[in-house]
Amino acid sequence: MRLGAIEAGGTKFVCGIGTEQGEVIERISIPTTTPEETLEQVIGFFKTREVDALGVGSFGPVDLDHASPTYGYITSTPKRHWNSFNLVGELKKRFSVPIGFDTDVNAAALGESVWGAAKGLDSCLYMTVGTGIGVGAVSEGKLVHGMLHPEMGHILVRRHEEDPFRGSCPFHGDCLEGMAAGPAIEARWGTKGVELAGDSKVWELEAYYLAQALVNYILILSPKKIIIGGGVMKQEQLFPLVREQTVKLLNGYIQHDNLLKTIDQYIVPPGLGDNAGLCGALALAKGL
Amino acid sequence: MRLGAIEAGGTKFVCGIGTEQGEVIERISIPTTTPEETLEQVIGFFKTREVDALGVGSFGPVDLDHASPTYGYITSTPKRHWNSFNLVGELKKRFSVPIGFDTDVNAAALGESVWGAAKGLDSCLYMTVGTGIGVGAVSEGKLVHGMLHPEMGHILVRRHEEDPFRGSCPFHGDCLEGMAAGPAIEARWGTKGVELAGDSKVWELEAYYLAQALVNYILILSPKKIIIGGGVMKQEQLFPLVREQTVKLLNGYIQHDNLLKTIDQYIVPPGLGDNAGLCGALALAKGL
Repeated sequence: MRLGAIEAGGTKFVCGIGTEQGEVIERISIPTTTPEETLEQVIGFFKTREVDALGVGSFGPVDLDHASPTYGYITSTPKRHWNSFNLVGELKKRFSVPIGFDTDVNAAALGESVWGAAKGLDSCLYMTVGTGIGVGAVSEGKLVHGMLHPEMGHILVRRHEEDPFRGSCPFHGDCLEGMAAGPAIEARWGTKGVELAGDSKVWELEAYYLAQALVNYILILSPKKIIIGGGVMKQEQLFPLVREQTVKLLNGYIQHDNLLKTIDQYIVPPGLGDNAGLCGALALAKGL
Repeated sequence: MRLGAIEAGGTKFVCGIGTEQGEVIERISIPTTTPEETLEQVIGFFKTREVDALGVGSFGPVDLDHASPTYGYITSTPKRHWNSFNLVGELKKRFSVPIGFDTDVNAAALGESVWGAAKGLDSCLYMTVGTGIGVGAVSEGKLVHGMLHPEMGHILVRRHEEDPFRGSCPFHGDCLEGMAAGPAIEARWGTKGVELAGDSKVWELEAYYLAQALVNYILILSPKKIIIGGGVMKQEQLFPLVREQTVKLLNGYIQHDNLLKTIDQYIVPPGLGDNAGLCGALALAKGL
């Protein structure tokens, strides 16, 4: 069985061909411009490569309600041209194979639970910290959806008392994304995070916000593994700081070895590395 | 089919007999003293009343991992005598019927989704605000568990800038439970909440904390219905305040009619009223 995968991102669409074992055989990266231009290239890639199913992990918000007339749409995105775009519908016009569709981060969570850091577990959480903060989750063996899909990047956090930064989220100001995504780091310190690698203050503050989010995710979803990827997490010094702050904030309330003894194996980078998103889309296709 | 239900609480065990339709035929309330005394009365009630299955919704923390040697135990509770008590094991010694076991609030969430305010929905959240704050959830048709069960009453909230109260949670100080459970209200104002019914400051502050929690639950789990019960919520003036604050904090980010148009039907009291807990235990039995 050959599977097709599309990681539909705000700056690029990564398309790939892979196997049921999660092996990526071929991949291509297409810039995200207008839907017409981008989709033309996506369709061009797949039309010469036969697949049995297609998985699409997309930037959002997206409509995942199969009963909705706008199922498969990218909905109220501020991204010009893509607002109310029928992504699944356009793909269905060209390809007659089953198409799986979810958020990019739910797809990545699924991929990690099938082939990656949470392999064999029926619950995990995948967070990406980059130009935004997105989070997907598997709970009881299923991707979490409800009224809509999760939007966990926007949860409320407590401002650090020595942090005067107002926050960069256009909706909430100082929510998690507004305080801890890449653009927030740059706006707060006047320099991109990658150039601040050696400044411990920067990463201690970053860990302070990320750990608050993890504490709430743990108390609400109780994931069996927490996986954090994205550009900001390339600063690997963040991992020990985030782990330490998470344990400190929970203060012994959750009695589990994952937190008390083996936190180094509980809060981890993606097992699939930079392939988490594309493999996630493959996993959506595999599940069809 | 006759079902048995036990709502195992820290101050009382409510036992009942009911039907698959969620009708409670008979009930009894037993004070929670020592496990020996309390269980003797529980067993006495059920031994003269034949049931086909038994559901137990218990105060926690509890061990719900079927693979664990302490499955069915109440674990690290500060409640004297009940720490590491094998509740399901003791019941199994006396009754040979299948026994369903979960947290009291997960049971209530299930009961509400089967017969109550969330009837017919595959996702909902049940929060009780009383001597503590407990929350259970159904997501994708299943009760949420993972590493452990959720402990959502302890999520982090932002202190109101005019609230000097330090918080009453022995683990976290000013977490949600520490700021908004009944004992926190009493400690902050020097009087029980029930005697402060007419003081709008009290309930605006209470709604400020509860709404923060709901915002995070919505962003993380996206429940299709939010049900709030417990002693503190007998102050019905809280509901409109909580709804208003929730909408204000989300600030239009979640585009759904539940929030934008019909919030009065989205954040609601238990459909099963004070029977939510007992009916929840019945629902656990029904699911076996």
